[in-house]
Order: sequence, then structure tokens, then C-alpha cells
Amino acid sequence: MYEQLNISTPTLLLDEEKCRRNIEAMAEKARRHDLLFRPHFKTHQSQELGRWFRDYGVDSITVSSLKMASYFADDGWLDITVAFPVNIREQQRLSALASRVQLNLVAENTESLDALDKLLQSPVRIFIKTDTGYHRTGLGPHQSELIDRMLNRMERSSKLEFAGFLAHAGHSYQGRRDKVVAEVHREALDVMQQLRDRYEGRYPTMMVSLGDTPTCSTMTEYPGVDEIRPGNFVFYDLTQVFIGSCSAENIAVGLACPVVALHPDRQEIILYGGGVHLSKDRVEDPGGRTIFGYVADWTQRGWQLHEKPAYLRSLSQEHGIVRATPEMMQRTKVGDLLCVLPVHSCMTADLMKEYLTLDGKSIDMMKW
Amino acid sequence: MYEQLNISTPTLLLDEEKCRRNIEAMAEKARRHDLLFRPHFKTHQSQELGRWFRDYGVDSITVSSLKMASYFADDGWLDITVAFPVNIREQQRLSALASRVQLNLVAENTESLDALDKLLQSPVRIFIKTDTGYHRTGLGPHQSELIDRMLNRMERSSKLEFAGFLAHAGHSYQGRRDKVVAEVHREALDVMQQLRDRYEGRYPTMMVSLGDTPTCSTMTEYPGVDEIRPGNFVFYDLTQVFIGSCSAENIAVGLACPVVALHPDRQEIILYGGGVHLSKDRVEDPGGRTIFGYVADWTQRGWQLHEKPAYLRSLSQEHGIVRATPEMMQRTKVGDLLCVLPVHSCMTADLMKEYLTLDGKSIDMMKW
Repeated sequence: MYEQLNISTPTLLLDEEKCRRNIEAMAEKARRHDLLFRPHFKTHQSQELGRWFRDYGVDSITVSSLKMASYFADDGWLDITVAFPVNIREQQRLSALASRVQLNLVAENTESLDALDKLLQSPVRIFIKTDTGYHRTGLGPHQSELIDRMLNRMERSSKLEFAGFLAHAGHSYQGRRDKVVAEVHREALDVMQQLRDRYEGRYPTMMVSLGDTPTCSTMTEYPGVDEIRPGNFVFYDLTQVFIGSCSAENIAVGLACPVVALHPDRQEIILYGGGVHLSKDRVEDPGGRTIFGYVADWTQRGWQLHEKPAYLRSLSQEHGIVRATPEMMQRTKVGDLLCVLPVHSCMTADLMKEYLTLDGKSIDMMKW
Repeated sequence: MYEQLNISTPTLLLDEEKCRRNIEAMAEKARRHDLLFRPHFKTHQSQELGRWFRDYGVDSITVSSLKMASYFADDGWLDITVAFPVNIREQQRLSALASRVQLNLVAENTESLDALDKLLQSPVRIFIKTDTGYHRTGLGPHQSELIDRMLNRMERSSKLEFAGFLAHAGHSYQGRRDKVVAEVHREALDVMQQLRDRYEGRYPTMMVSLGDTPTCSTMTEYPGVDEIRPGNFVFYDLTQVFIGSCSAENIAVGLACPVVALHPDRQEIILYGGGVHLSKDRVEDPGGRTIFGYVADWTQRGWQLHEKPAYLRSLSQEHGIVRATPEMMQRTKVGDLLCVLPVHSCMTADLMKEYLTLDGKSIDMMKW
């Protein structure tokens, strides 16, 4: 199918239909569960793609940096959560954003609140970052003394409004088609409920914000949750397939890579497409192999994953090494393109900085 | 030392003095061994930094893509080797480059040669990619039938001139302060000698081109080698320190990362600085730990690695998790900057797309 696309170097293809279906399904699920849907835009990082979300009723978003917040504010998004512990060194960006959008920040210590109170002219809302078991950032319910100090600090400020508790249960990514995701979700709900029980009397409008793609894709109950913030679901990827968040048919991006060499003696195909395109993210597949991507078959309109796909066994800066199937080895020629489904679509998109839709339309992303 | 640099987000610092010393030492070593020094510019990817090499007599370079070749050709480099199996889909770039610089390409099959002969108007030189044991790409001496076919194909073309044999012994990176690098080097020399013995009579001017940073940094004999193409040495990194290619004092880049949270209970510091800045490349350190970077101490003029440094135990898209030393935990505050020495400087530079020297000068890189 790629002949008409005029591709000469590694190119990130985007299947708009699959992508829109992913957005629609998650928006629909949020509606069904009466959850505010605040998708994380760090995965696609594109103003144009972000506009597709408006077709499904989205008007509040999540980003991972203040630069990304400015980029999306420039495209008319007015309610933005920066789901990363606030970086108080970025004073100018913080001030500028607070004055032009509803800016929701994440904090987990009073030092950040002191700094914000001092530097801001306009009000912001503050989520207290909550650790529900991932142990990367955030406070647990046992740290109520520190939480209270933060709440009191906000009370004393005219610019800092307490928004609620926000968590990212990143350990759901350790799931593999088993109970892990459900356990992580249950644990997160439990932690959030403890905080709600303790603080809802004092803050009746406080929100509970959760949201990683595995739990948002697979769980069916969200008691006590007010909003979800999944990001990766917009494209999905092999990691999500192995977790059980989606099927391979949901993966909406594929990297088209030129074949530059063939080594039939070791049944390997060398691609122009390496760590600077796919990232060095790896994952263990159900066969127990460490892989850097699967090779999908081209179809009339896109790609499809074979039952026993060829896989990328290693990556260097620009090379990808495919362990090919005998049939693929037979038919592949130097100068062909192969379609690689990524292990981690967020990282691949971040590196590629541009999409090409199957209709040949180029879609821009945030650059520098 | 960073107060005067006005850094608010993850920033790649470049110590020009260390960098120039690395360049000078390698240029000097090449001269001593009567080797043509053709440094690989994929590590720094910067026209401005590339000009520093001219001060040490460099006038021929290596790159890893045709786009990079065009970028450096635009800055006046006239003799460029693209050390990657030629991608015959990039017809326009190949034609344009061949007409404006001495373009040296790498091939390992006759299909590529057929395509080049057809599409080029100007002559190019062709290196036959040689496998000296890394088994990523290239042909071994036992494939002399295919090599002969390639040589004959070049003979029949007015545009393809045989340049010699080129190898990248990437398996030298598996070395760890032991005999591995020396063995890899000996094996490469042996393979190249076999090819020289077989083909030098017919091609008296043929060149043998080798060159990865570990062998170029540590070996002392290069019999039968005409040119070297190391790249990483311009900055070095932790991987090279662990291999034994350099000492930590030679590392010329460090990522300045804002501290966004502290977790004294688990002795961890959370940095703004993750996989989109450092890459997800990891390495095992001499303590047997998988690390994503070491934290260096700031000095009056740069940084210095402590004997028992704190290390990055994990990275997500924007977060870096430092397992801190007690002393560091004690003195570090939210809003401070920490200096992370990268595991793989090529990948980090590729992601950061800009340098800031210790004098506060911004140095641009190839972008899109």
C-alpha cells in the first residue's frame, strides 16, 4: 500500500481511522462511567491531532511539561493539567500560562507551594500528587501531616486553590494479561478513598484524578474517581497489547522503514530505523523474547499483524535488525519498506516529530 | 557553578575544554599511527562543533545518514563517508550529494550497486561493508564470491569506484576493562588482512577503514589500517568509562536537571529529566547495578564525578529517579539542578538537539 506515499526514510505512519476509534472508545467509556475525560497529550504532542479530540467532546487536557502546555494553549485549549511535579525554575512559563488558561499544577511539597505563591500573579489549581503504590512520586495517606501542611499553605495563599488528589498508577505496566492491572486499580481506588474520607468534608468539590492506559482500558468500575487521564491509548503499542489493554488491531502508528540489507544466512533483514527513530524501549513478548518491535504486513489500506510476526531483535542508533520469518526473508528485497509496530508509541512519536497519514497527509508535532 | 547559566529545563551542558582535548588526543593518535582520521559526526550532529575539528587538521568526516551528509556539506565539508548501508530509496539526496561532494557510500550487495549505477549522474566511491565479527551488517572474507560480484559490478560502472573495505566492530562495546576490546581488534585486523591479501594486487589504492571508540581509544597497534572513524570519543560517556576507553574526567557533556521532588524515606530525588532527554539506554555499572546515568558534583567550572556517585535507577518519559547518597539527600533542595552524566552521549545529544557551553554559549545541532 505504500507505493503512493513516496517514502524514502523512516516515517511514522498514522492510521487516522484506528486512532479516531481509540479516542471515541475512551471518550464513550468515560461518559458511561460519568468521568471527566482529560486525555494526556504527551503521547501525540500534536495540535492538529489534538483537534480530533474535540469531535468527541473533549475540552480539558493533560500534558507533561509547561512547554507542551504553552504549545496546546496556543491552539485554544483553555483547561490544562501539567501532570508532572511542578518545576519551579520555569517562572516565566508558569506566570504566562497562569494568566491565560485554567492551569492545574501538581505538587507534593510545601517548598513548591511557597515558590508558586511568590512568583504567580494569577491563580492556579493545585493537585496533590498521590502515590498509590508506584513509588515514583507522590504522597501516601500515611503522610497526612505533610498533606495537611500543604493544604494549610494553600489556604494562606490567594493564588493557590486546592483541586484534589492526582495519581498515576504506572505499576499497572507491570501487568501481563493477568490480575496485576486489577490489583493496581483496586489499590489505587483504596488509597484515593482514604483521602476522600479524610478531606472531602473540608473540601466538598475536591477531585480524584486517576489514569493510566492499562487501567482505563481494561477496568469496568471507577468508584470514587472524578476524572481519568490516559494518554497512550490514542495510538496504543505492543506493550499495551502484551498487558492486555488492547489488541494489535488497535495500534494506530507504524514506522515505515527502508530495507537496506539482507542476511539470509542468519535469516535477518537490516532496516534503516533504529534507536533514534523507535527509542531503545524494549519489552518481553509472550514468547519470552526481548523485542524492540514487531513487523506487520502491509494491507490494501494499512497494516495487519501476522499471528507469528517477525520481530526486531536489536537496535543501534540507525539500524534495526529483524529476525525474519522464512516467508518474509524469501519475498523481501533491498529498497522495500517494512512496517514496524513500536514497543512504546509515546517515545517513538516524540522522536519522529511528524506523522504521515495513510492518505498522505503530513501532521506536524511540537518541535523545539 | 550553574547559577549564571539561567537554566530552567533539562539542558545539555558541554565542556568545550574537555571536548577539544578529546578531539586533539584522537587526532594526535591518528597522526602518530599514520592513519587518516575521519571522525564520525553522528555523535555531536553540529556544524558549529564540527568546525572545532578543523583546528586539529580534520577535513574528511563520517556521518550516518544522507540528511546528515547534506547538513555538513552545507557547512563546507567536501569529503563525506555515509557509514550506513546505502538507502537506495533516497534518490534525490544521493544524486544531489554526489554532484557536490566527494561522497563515499557503503554497500554490501549488488542490488544497491545496480540501483546506484542507474540513478547517479556523478561518481561516488564505494566501500564494501565488512563483518569482522559483530554480525550486524557486512560481508566476511568467506563470502568472496559475492565480494567479487560486487567488484565486477563496479568495474562495469563509470560512476562506482571501489574505495576499499569498511567495518564497524560494534561488539567491542561488550568489553568491560578486560581483554574483549583487544580480541575484537585483533579479529578485525585479521579479517581485514585477509581481504587485503586477496584484493590489494588488483586494487593497490584500496583502503581499510575501521573505527569504533573503544578500539580507537585503547589499542596501540593498527597494522594494515588506513583510516579510523570513531565518533563517541568527542564526548565519551559512562558506557565508555566502564569499557575502559576513557576516564570519567573525559566526559564532556552533562545533563543539567531540575530537582522537582525529594523522597528522603526511600532516599530518592526526582528529577525533571527522563527518557525523552537521556534516552532509555542503560548499562551495568561496576557494582552490577543497571543504571541510566550517574550524578556528578558541580565544581567551580563544570562538574566532577564523586568516587561513589549517586545513580539514576530508572527513567520514565520525563522523570528521572536518583538513588541518592545520604550526603546528597541532606543538601539537595527542590529547585536545585543536578548534573547527570549520560550512559550513551550519542543518544542524549540526538534527543536534546542543542548544547549550552559552560560559558553560556548556545550551540545548535541538526534539527529536521
